[in-house]
Amino acid sequence: MEKELEQDLKARFGRAIRRRRRELDISQEVLAERADLHRTYVSDIEQGSRNPSLVNIVQLAMGLEITVVRRFEEYGVEDSG
Amino acid sequence: MEKELEQDLKARFGRAIRRRRRELDISQEVLAERADLHRTYVSDIEQGSRNPSLVNIVQLAMGLEITVVRRFEEYGVEDSG
Repeated sequence: MEKELEQDLKARFGRAIRRRRRELDISQEVLAERADLHRTYVSDIEQGSRNPSLVNIVQLAMGLEITVVRRFEEYGVEDSG
Repeated sequence: MEKELEQDLKARFGRAIRRRRRELDISQEVLAERADLHRTYVSDIEQGSRNPSLVNIVQLAMGLEITVVRRFEEYGVEDSG
């Protein structure tokens, strides 16, 4: 994937995390605790400077009370068309 | 996340990738080419022995003609309840 696309993807992911965290009205610190991640890692993610792993993505999803895994299963095998 | 849960998550992810690849009736080699990844990496993913990054997950999704990113955006901020 081109570097520019990668950056855009990470930035969009970070914004989605931040949006949901704010919806829940919790701090990065609280999210970090819930997700069992370091606070600076959560901050980096939100700023789009990290390329999180599947495991970390799911930890974040759990901390944000969302269901990435189920969604992957339900929709991840669907056609894009 | 506990090691056992991690393993389970990676295994389920791998199975979802394999299922979709077979739906498309393409080899690991063809998927690897489409996703711009190494064939052994695709094999490892399907066997659940890798913890792929966001970027690689999206590369796989593109290779499998699915829309993880859009799904993340549409559903990723939804309540699990």
